[in-house]
Amino acid sequence: MNCLEISGEVCHVDPVRYTPAGIPALNLILKHSSEQIEANLKRTINCELSAKIMGNDALIPLKIGDRIKTKGFIGNKSAKSNQLIFHINFIEYL
Amino acid sequence: MNCLEISGEVCHVDPVRYTPAGIPALNLILKHSSEQIEANLKRTINCELSAKIMGNDALIPLKIGDRIKTKGFIGNKSAKSNQLIFHINFIEYL
Repeated sequence: MNCLEISGEVCHVDPVRYTPAGIPALNLILKHSSEQIEANLKRTINCELSAKIMGNDALIPLKIGDRIKTKGFIGNKSAKSNQLIFHINFIEYL
Repeated sequence: MNCLEISGEVCHVDPVRYTPAGIPALNLILKHSSEQIEANLKRTINCELSAKIMGNDALIPLKIGDRIKTKGFIGNKSAKSNQLIFHINFIEYL
């Protein structure tokens, strides 16, 4: 089980690139802010999430300021890095 | 919307501490490994996730090696850090 659903605003987006196998890939940063309940207390939560989209959804023309709803899974950026990256496999404009 | 569901193994757990308001709090690191589908390709995903539990669930006697299923939300560790932390508000032994 590894499923993240999060909405946010695109605050950085790279140009589309292609893997050696010709698969489109897009790297972006998603800015999220919301109110959450923790130990019965309401608190404001913020985060900036490095994210990537692989495949046809990487061709969706995202631009800074777009508000999107996304779903996917999280993993380490690389074998040598504990930094997290969000692999988006579902995306919808808000 | 900010909801993460993830299962994994406890690979580090701090002693329980209490906030100034007397709320129990527990910091741990969750190690996750799974196979995911991305752009129609199966890939192995690994990550280590800093996590915290606030409230009574923080008193659950977790120990290294425990396999757990969790649900919660993600946020920045602090206002000055983009490092992510997983706020667990549901936990179940696997």
